[in-house]
Amino acid sequence: MDFAFDEKTEDYRKRLLAFMDEYVYPAEAGYEQAYQGDWAPPAELERLKAQAKLAGLWNLFLPGSHGAGLTNLQYAPLAEITGRSPIIAPPSLNCAAPDTGNMEVLAEFGTEEQQDRWLRPLLDGTIRSAFAMTEPQVASSDATNIGTRIARDGDEYVITGRKFYISGAMNPRCQIFIVMGKTDPEAARHVQQSMILVPRDTPGVTVQRGMTVFGYDDGDHGGHAEVIFDEVRVPISNLIGSEGSGFAISQARLGPGRIHHCMRLIGMAERALELMCTRALTRTPFGKPLAEQGVVQEWIAESRVRIEQARLLVLKAAWLMDTVGNKGAHTEIQSIKIIVPSTTEWIIDKAIQTYGAAGVGQDTPLARLWATTRTLRLADGPDEVHKRSLARRELNRYRSA
Amino acid sequence: MDFAFDEKTEDYRKRLLAFMDEYVYPAEAGYEQAYQGDWAPPAELERLKAQAKLAGLWNLFLPGSHGAGLTNLQYAPLAEITGRSPIIAPPSLNCAAPDTGNMEVLAEFGTEEQQDRWLRPLLDGTIRSAFAMTEPQVASSDATNIGTRIARDGDEYVITGRKFYISGAMNPRCQIFIVMGKTDPEAARHVQQSMILVPRDTPGVTVQRGMTVFGYDDGDHGGHAEVIFDEVRVPISNLIGSEGSGFAISQARLGPGRIHHCMRLIGMAERALELMCTRALTRTPFGKPLAEQGVVQEWIAESRVRIEQARLLVLKAAWLMDTVGNKGAHTEIQSIKIIVPSTTEWIIDKAIQTYGAAGVGQDTPLARLWATTRTLRLADGPDEVHKRSLARRELNRYRSA
Amino acid sequence: MDFAFDEKTEDYRKRLLAFMDEYVYPAEAGYEQAYQGDWAPPAELERLKAQAKLAGLWNLFLPGSHGAGLTNLQYAPLAEITGRSPIIAPPSLNCAAPDTGNMEVLAEFGTEEQQDRWLRPLLDGTIRSAFAMTEPQVASSDATNIGTRIARDGDEYVITGRKFYISGAMNPRCQIFIVMGKTDPEAARHVQQSMILVPRDTPGVTVQRGMTVFGYDDGDHGGHAEVIFDEVRVPISNLIGSEGSGFAISQARLGPGRIHHCMRLIGMAERALELMCTRALTRTPFGKPLAEQGVVQEWIAESRVRIEQARLLVLKAAWLMDTVGNKGAHTEIQSIKIIVPSTTEWIIDKAIQTYGAAGVGQDTPLARLWATTRTLRLADGPDEVHKRSLARRELNRYRSA
Amino acid sequence: MDFAFDEKTEDYRKRLLAFMDEYVYPAEAGYEQAYQGDWAPPAELERLKAQAKLAGLWNLFLPGSHGAGLTNLQYAPLAEITGRSPIIAPPSLNCAAPDTGNMEVLAEFGTEEQQDRWLRPLLDGTIRSAFAMTEPQVASSDATNIGTRIARDGDEYVITGRKFYISGAMNPRCQIFIVMGKTDPEAARHVQQSMILVPRDTPGVTVQRGMTVFGYDDGDHGGHAEVIFDEVRVPISNLIGSEGSGFAISQARLGPGRIHHCMRLIGMAERALELMCTRALTRTPFGKPLAEQGVVQEWIAESRVRIEQARLLVLKAAWLMDTVGNKGAHTEIQSIKIIVPSTTEWIIDKAIQTYGAAGVGQDTPLARLWATTRTLRLADGPDEVHKRSLARRELNRYRSA
Repeated sequence: MDFAFDEKTEDYRKRLLAFMDEYVYPAEAGYEQAYQGDWAPPAELERLKAQAKLAGLWNLFLPGSHGAGLTNLQYAPLAEITGRSPIIAPPSLNCAAPDTGNMEVLAEFGTEEQQDRWLRPLLDGTIRSAFAMTEPQVASSDATNIGTRIARDGDEYVITGRKFYISGAMNPRCQIFIVMGKTDPEAARHVQQSMILVPRDTPGVTVQRGMTVFGYDDGDHGGHAEVIFDEVRVPISNLIGSEGSGFAISQARLGPGRIHHCMRLIGMAERALELMCTRALTRTPFGKPLAEQGVVQEWIAESRVRIEQARLLVLKAAWLMDTVGNKGAHTEIQSIKIIVPSTTEWIIDKAIQTYGAAGVGQDTPLARLWATTRTLRLADGPDEVHKRSLARRELNRYRSA
Repeated sequence: MDFAFDEKTEDYRKRLLAFMDEYVYPAEAGYEQAYQGDWAPPAELERLKAQAKLAGLWNLFLPGSHGAGLTNLQYAPLAEITGRSPIIAPPSLNCAAPDTGNMEVLAEFGTEEQQDRWLRPLLDGTIRSAFAMTEPQVASSDATNIGTRIARDGDEYVITGRKFYISGAMNPRCQIFIVMGKTDPEAARHVQQSMILVPRDTPGVTVQRGMTVFGYDDGDHGGHAEVIFDEVRVPISNLIGSEGSGFAISQARLGPGRIHHCMRLIGMAERALELMCTRALTRTPFGKPLAEQGVVQEWIAESRVRIEQARLLVLKAAWLMDTVGNKGAHTEIQSIKIIVPSTTEWIIDKAIQTYGAAGVGQDTPLARLWATTRTLRLADGPDEVHKRSLARRELNRYRSA
Repeated sequence: MDFAFDEKTEDYRKRLLAFMDEYVYPAEAGYEQAYQGDWAPPAELERLKAQAKLAGLWNLFLPGSHGAGLTNLQYAPLAEITGRSPIIAPPSLNCAAPDTGNMEVLAEFGTEEQQDRWLRPLLDGTIRSAFAMTEPQVASSDATNIGTRIARDGDEYVITGRKFYISGAMNPRCQIFIVMGKTDPEAARHVQQSMILVPRDTPGVTVQRGMTVFGYDDGDHGGHAEVIFDEVRVPISNLIGSEGSGFAISQARLGPGRIHHCMRLIGMAERALELMCTRALTRTPFGKPLAEQGVVQEWIAESRVRIEQARLLVLKAAWLMDTVGNKGAHTEIQSIKIIVPSTTEWIIDKAIQTYGAAGVGQDTPLARLWATTRTLRLADGPDEVHKRSLARRELNRYRSA
Repeated sequence: MDFAFDEKTEDYRKRLLAFMDEYVYPAEAGYEQAYQGDWAPPAELERLKAQAKLAGLWNLFLPGSHGAGLTNLQYAPLAEITGRSPIIAPPSLNCAAPDTGNMEVLAEFGTEEQQDRWLRPLLDGTIRSAFAMTEPQVASSDATNIGTRIARDGDEYVITGRKFYISGAMNPRCQIFIVMGKTDPEAARHVQQSMILVPRDTPGVTVQRGMTVFGYDDGDHGGHAEVIFDEVRVPISNLIGSEGSGFAISQARLGPGRIHHCMRLIGMAERALELMCTRALTRTPFGKPLAEQGVVQEWIAESRVRIEQARLLVLKAAWLMDTVGNKGAHTEIQSIKIIVPSTTEWIIDKAIQTYGAAGVGQDTPLARLWATTRTLRLADGPDEVHKRSLARRELNRYRSA
């Protein structure tokens, strides 16, 4: 047992921390204001991407030859650092959801043709993508609920359905959707679904409106779209994997995705704690700095302890994914999905409280960090679904006994 | 001891509930969409105001001859009902903050001239007003911190300072500000402040920008403005009360204000619980309605119990204000300020969780209700300040012993 | 709506408060030490009972002509006061569980013979009683689970079963048990059970051992016995009510019982808060009284707010029982069962924390108050059962809609 | 970074788990009943100690040549296992507090004579010891508060003071006390204290009474004594280290002590979770196993996640102590002191709730585990003191910036 990062990780951390200081934090101040209301990131982002490529900080998330070749355990602390500035840093490094998961899917399950057509420009950062799973009418935590149909018709598939909260899909540079739907509603529960590639400009695709997240439209990273698929036709070669493999691919996709989300959340929690401390040292109501008030001290101490616990669990989950595979890491992946968003939410809430009115507005990053974090308590299935599943596995240990 | 409403209250409740059903709830669907981006409420509001006047549901908040003449205990359950639709119902009845508090101040402390000029149109609902206390540079929970200066210069006062989160002030119909500032920074701690009337169009007043609350700008009820006062000159007759009376008037203003906020929050909590229940009955992930899942049942039961407790405490605080005065009700007023926002926040959070992604967006009122509620944990001073003050009074009971 | 106590209540409160000061608190110091290890209360108790009779503070709990004739709303604040010294005050006033519930049952459902034989001496305080419902093998929250059999055999009933946590039953003065069992296991779910009177000295009754509650055997108020009924025979005239009425009677018994428990818990919470405050004022680690530390202040303020909320809800439940009956007060009775023990537990926990090691030991009443309170989170059915039931009723409001 | 145990640890774990199965768990059933009321462990313990020696599971806690020579990181998972049966396993392996800490002090700071006289028999398990620091009159979390005097008088020290909650000191086999007191109340704050060896039979030592922990006197592992030192004289050679070194030695002693406590608490939490799961699988109120009820599943999932987080943080703290020393591990040691007792308390509370009445009594280990755990939230200083200290260090990171 050893709690030190390896040399490669330390090297990447050093370079990434320098990149944050030199490029990312300075870009924060004007970033939201530079947004043009066109659902595309400010132009500044392209400059940051170029710098990240130069710095060798590109596609860090992707194992294997397509990406930087890091293990999950090596990437995790880097994802944490990008989480400190979650609007700017991940896309600057081409490490932003949902592209990351989509690239993983294409790298692992895509045909050569699919990789040439879509993976390559995604790896290059010249286009963006979206992952269209969530639907308004059904609880998407239960994949068997999905209403979208993918019906074979000769050499084509015909896609019909309604999706919402499709992150990034408002961005005009988002050119390709991976759509989850049912190819065979009569098949066994977990082989009804398939994933299929749908170019944004296919007839029948309507990007209807941007959904909000506690008032934010997140326009500067592509929003969250409601998208209608009305008898959309694509060639059968657009199917990813085989018919019925959609659920299995989505599970494969979610493992690393959760690690990444959780690590970024740790970074967000660290940022919030830093903001809480600096505020506490400078704000002096009633003649005494907040930093000397017991309740604020309790928040700070609790935050530190909770962050350390959460980070270790995320790192262990990453280590297990690397050593025994996603399946062997199932309990730990589910555990971090359960604990990290709520932990980070708690910390940001306390940071907001130290800022008073300023904490809920646009002059600190806190309110927006909060909205993102709160949403992750229900994205990919609400916490409650994961708790139930985890509890069942725990109980099973005693069932056979 | 008697927990039944009196006859007058029951009559008002009946009429108000009918008004909600007939006018308010039907207006909800199109209201936000009707907003023109001009920081003014949608035109629909004027129609609702006319109906409320006709229905005898106007200025209910105001005791005495200027208003409906209800006691706090009579008004509280009516405010609760308006809280079920907090964007639309309160202004429809001319019972929306901050006008309510401002009208109270003018009714109680205003000169005849001030009442003629500003109270009358406010009571008629032809103009709106704002209350400019909070400042970005200092913790406003500590009134002695206030940086804005109100300096006497001959027959005028000269006002210089920066305020933010001035609710309603972005609304072009908001014509008058009550500004809190220091007339004598050298005086004893609680007599340094004064309140003064500043018409919006006075030279030197700049309504700088709208502040956000989580992602909301609340444009449809006048936003929350940053306002700069740069050597703004008003006649000395604009002073409310005497020099140094600002802190005392603000305390008088806050008592009923908190009751109103808290009662509306109870209504918001009831609305959220209703939404949680209806969702739980209709949403069926994994083949079982949410309504049959233990965790959701626990949320519902906890919500019911917490709401009942909170409502009773608010009603008792109102009763005390009526029977022993605001000062005698100090502990209870502070208690509801502490407990009601956090209780309501908890309930809305759980309602959101039952809605999944839909809960954080624009298709249910929940996310916006949440943002409002969260903000009330820090408006009028963060909970922590009130807890400290309440604890000291509790401890004092044992000090003399 | 009126939050003031009526005159009669105020009169009783005044006299009871005086009795507490003159007799009860002074008896506390030596009480536990005076306990002889014989499962009977210290002799001092008889002196206190005599004084309470003289003071007209006897059988206050019992409505109607058998008792003091108070309403639930009038008795509730008196029960609260006795809860401040829960080992001594309730039995001193002949208002201690389980006798109170048993007397209610006998007064309401007992035959004249049963009343003469058992109710009279209980009302006089010359004997004690026990209520034998809970069983070790089944979840007693579900009455249909009960395993004890009450089988008719000619002119007798034959009782066989095992009960535990039968409070008061170790006390040699406890002469009569009301036993819950099944007379007809094949009947409909809620009419299988009956209650029957079993004198302690009946052959086949074995009072096996005292059960502990977090290490306490509660010997000074009769302990909590495991009792075995092995073919115990009693005349059929010992049946209370009719066969199959056991569940209904137990529900009738529980309503007031919960009010009493909850009101005493409010008194216990007040006592704990008082102890917390006095400790905080006198303990000075690191050169500053605990009373000036923010975290302790937060505990005190939270405690005050929670107590006020809980008390109002208990009082409202009592008022409803008086005005619309136990059934109409169902939600509120269940609500206080859910919220009051956990609230009081939280407060006592914080009080313990201010005392450090002294808080967990025998030199303050806190640890024992805590153990009692914690147990009430599961006595009469765990909180979770009540929450589920309450949630269902809440959901039903929207089902028909 | 590597989350696997090393080979040596795995070997010890395997042997210890076998020892638990073969000797410890089977001894549990009759252990408390075998206790003779003499404040000494049941005779069975000596047999277990002999077996542990044979199994090479003796003095595992002690690094260096006196003990098993394990690192903190190696010992931690073994301490966890002993925590599953915390009354029996630790003393069986001669790894029970307070002897462990006392042996560490003697091994590190004792003179050769002190080691011969006291360390040797402690290592052999032929005597027990106590650590006399806590005092009833002062907050012991603040060492400068200590009231006990250790006054030099020629060749002797004269000790006068009152201590309480001296664990193990009621045990007649407890022959030696390490007493903390002030040799120089006028010295600088942290060099006023010294530690001194006081044999139990020294004139002037009165072991006054056993203190309780919730209702437990913990007689079967030596109780918690109030001890009076009334002009007790010992030779100056009994001083440990030099005058004024008491605080520094106590800090050195507390580091490993906290790790041990926390690791045992993890084991207690695992035991409670196991009991919760087995109960949930077999208890079937209302026709459905507790294991299928959502609220119970939530408890189980939360417990698993919290345990994993807490364990990792304890292990990291152990690793830091081994790699950068106790001082470098300060934040992590304090963190586990803050989080582990409250985490374990939460889990045991939920386990109790699944057992209903049986959970608070003597037929499961839960209630006693709870009492021990709750007490650790205030032993060695209440959580609040540690949070304040940790917060200050966190804030200091931003002070210099």
